[in-house]
Amino acid sequence: MSLWSRYAERFARGRSTERIVFFSDAVFAIAMTLLIVELHPPEVPNAELDEALLELIPGYLTFVLSFVVVGAIWISHHRKFTAIVRYDQGLIRLNVWMLLFVASLPLPTAILGLHGGTVIAVVIYAITIVAIEVLLMCIWIYAWHRGLVSEDVDRPLYRLMLVQSFSIPAVFLISIPVAVLWGATAGSLTWIAALPLGVLLPRLYARRAE
Amino acid sequence: MSLWSRYAERFARGRSTERIVFFSDAVFAIAMTLLIVELHPPEVPNAELDEALLELIPGYLTFVLSFVVVGAIWISHHRKFTAIVRYDQGLIRLNVWMLLFVASLPLPTAILGLHGGTVIAVVIYAITIVAIEVLLMCIWIYAWHRGLVSEDVDRPLYRLMLVQSFSIPAVFLISIPVAVLWGATAGSLTWIAALPLGVLLPRLYARRAE
Amino acid sequence: MSLWSRYAERFARGRSTERIVFFSDAVFAIAMTLLIVELHPPEVPNAELDEALLELIPGYLTFVLSFVVVGAIWISHHRKFTAIVRYDQGLIRLNVWMLLFVASLPLPTAILGLHGGTVIAVVIYAITIVAIEVLLMCIWIYAWHRGLVSEDVDRPLYRLMLVQSFSIPAVFLISIPVAVLWGATAGSLTWIAALPLGVLLPRLYARRAE
Amino acid sequence: MSLWSRYAERFARGRSTERIVFFSDAVFAIAMTLLIVELHPPEVPNAELDEALLELIPGYLTFVLSFVVVGAIWISHHRKFTAIVRYDQGLIRLNVWMLLFVASLPLPTAILGLHGGTVIAVVIYAITIVAIEVLLMCIWIYAWHRGLVSEDVDRPLYRLMLVQSFSIPAVFLISIPVAVLWGATAGSLTWIAALPLGVLLPRLYARRAE
Repeated sequence: MSLWSRYAERFARGRSTERIVFFSDAVFAIAMTLLIVELHPPEVPNAELDEALLELIPGYLTFVLSFVVVGAIWISHHRKFTAIVRYDQGLIRLNVWMLLFVASLPLPTAILGLHGGTVIAVVIYAITIVAIEVLLMCIWIYAWHRGLVSEDVDRPLYRLMLVQSFSIPAVFLISIPVAVLWGATAGSLTWIAALPLGVLLPRLYARRAE
Repeated sequence: MSLWSRYAERFARGRSTERIVFFSDAVFAIAMTLLIVELHPPEVPNAELDEALLELIPGYLTFVLSFVVVGAIWISHHRKFTAIVRYDQGLIRLNVWMLLFVASLPLPTAILGLHGGTVIAVVIYAITIVAIEVLLMCIWIYAWHRGLVSEDVDRPLYRLMLVQSFSIPAVFLISIPVAVLWGATAGSLTWIAALPLGVLLPRLYARRAE
Repeated sequence: MSLWSRYAERFARGRSTERIVFFSDAVFAIAMTLLIVELHPPEVPNAELDEALLELIPGYLTFVLSFVVVGAIWISHHRKFTAIVRYDQGLIRLNVWMLLFVASLPLPTAILGLHGGTVIAVVIYAITIVAIEVLLMCIWIYAWHRGLVSEDVDRPLYRLMLVQSFSIPAVFLISIPVAVLWGATAGSLTWIAALPLGVLLPRLYARRAE
Repeated sequence: MSLWSRYAERFARGRSTERIVFFSDAVFAIAMTLLIVELHPPEVPNAELDEALLELIPGYLTFVLSFVVVGAIWISHHRKFTAIVRYDQGLIRLNVWMLLFVASLPLPTAILGLHGGTVIAVVIYAITIVAIEVLLMCIWIYAWHRGLVSEDVDRPLYRLMLVQSFSIPAVFLISIPVAVLWGATAGSLTWIAALPLGVLLPRLYARRAE
């Protein structure tokens, strides 16, 4: 065995994804908690406080939206990594790229909170979510084809997971032309479709696949 | 067994709550540490520093209050998850919703630090704490009824835990009408009642339940 | 056994300090990393950048000082918790109080960075460090007397650890009257004494104790 | 055995690097996520939003650069600590010093984002990366010579790891005189060389070493 193969064998692959999972969890947790940081308490006299707090509401709703969306992505990541039990350098790199967009999320969220009525804010936000989800799907496909997935997951289970991972990015992808054609409100209303689709689509697929 | 059941069995349930606990701990730790971020060092000439530091004191006391309250909630979460040893998707979702309010806490804390004398600041803060605690109680009730709790916890222990979890939200809930009727100071003084009540109530219940 | 004793036995005590250690590590890591956040990049024209960067140097040095001091405290915490192998509620509470001061550290650090030449900034910083270290000593003393320390640590080892934990708070405590009497510079120069004292004192004690 | 030796034996050395790895991961994750915090959403009227977003692009690209560079450093740290299986106080201290520069990275990144065209911003950024990488190499060399590395890593594997760790700091080190002599753009273009060099150099070395 050549030195390079021995090196790759010893350092590039591993049997426990624990540290990758841990590091990802930390980035998710920090990004989700930083979402609130761009919302500053109003520094106005007490008499004007009520009005100033009303102006904070769109920003707060955007925080809630982002927290719930990233929470759902975290759950999806968590679920996949109960099955991904080995790693190689490619998996680690894909995961770092996904975390890049997770970590960047406080910025699109803050832009959306301040400029929710603009098409560009809706589009930037949707692109970020699509990027995270597509990379998460790549991680799952890559892990399957490189044999990093636990043996108790067979092909039908692998495919059903892929279908379920597909609903959120699909909705956010569709929202981009919707926002451009019919405006920002139409775009963000499209996002609400993600919830029922995420519940229905995998169930429909599971029934058909049998 | 249908494909969907196999999928749910493999991915939606699990025997180790370690990653959930870990992720929650990270959100708690970040939210607690971010509480200080809204307190900025005074950028004044050195001659005016003493006065400027005195103005920081209400904000600092609110930081201490929030840290101690969230610390107590973390201890309560820690205690429950020594007994919750399995999970399903419902538990994970309830936990994410609870973390949403934990992560949002730096904002109500900063509002309270800047506008401690106003009823609205006291009410917003109290609502946030009540939301966290009620969701924590929901987690405990849900875990019990879905059989996710360790077998060495029997019904009397389960109920006593519920009673103990009840004291902090009760006090913060009561503080809302108190603040509306008698003002912000009365509202925040009510919070001080949480400590003795949290110590007394479960002991009284435990004696009566025997 | 009464219900209350059963409850305390099941929930208030535990055989693994892993989650406490984990949570503490997260607070330490976040507080240490947030130290840099109060240092903002200069928003000046490129031509004035060199001068603006020179003005950042005192703030940067304070960041380095704080990072190294908190790093030393983290090492000290790490060392004690290799020996503290059980917990009770008192230990958890002492640890949360210690973390309160760790989490608050970005503020005194930023004040020191902006107003390093003032006595009050030096005193506030020294008080925070003393508070952290004294609580860390309390944790160690408490754990010893409640039987939470691993059996392979005997009384001489326990005492030597206490002596070693004593040097940093002693130096920071002494720096307070020094700063008040002879000014801020004298106060902060005192801190440099912590290093050799931290190395010498435990070795001297260890030799004498034999 | 003297008291001091017993103390060092019990507390200064250890058989599990888990907590050190964990703490490092947390600092890496926070520093990487904080990189985005200095990028603020534009607070302009909606009509001027497009233009304001264009101005954010250099800052965003710097965020991406820093995230990818620190991600690569994290992967390198991860890889070394699959082999470093014991620790002593020297290793812990070297690791804290490395984390100091990791934690400081949001500041040089923000300076580079605002003043990317200046030589001083390029130089400060390059020095920070070199400092992190050199300390990471010191950790590896130190661990090897103190016998902290797992027995299944032999001298050729140890050396190959050292060669691989060498490419990023080498490129950033070279970029400093390049920036001073030929300007900021030339300096930052040098960094792009890190990628192929990081891939080629260790492979060349591995072939030659056989």
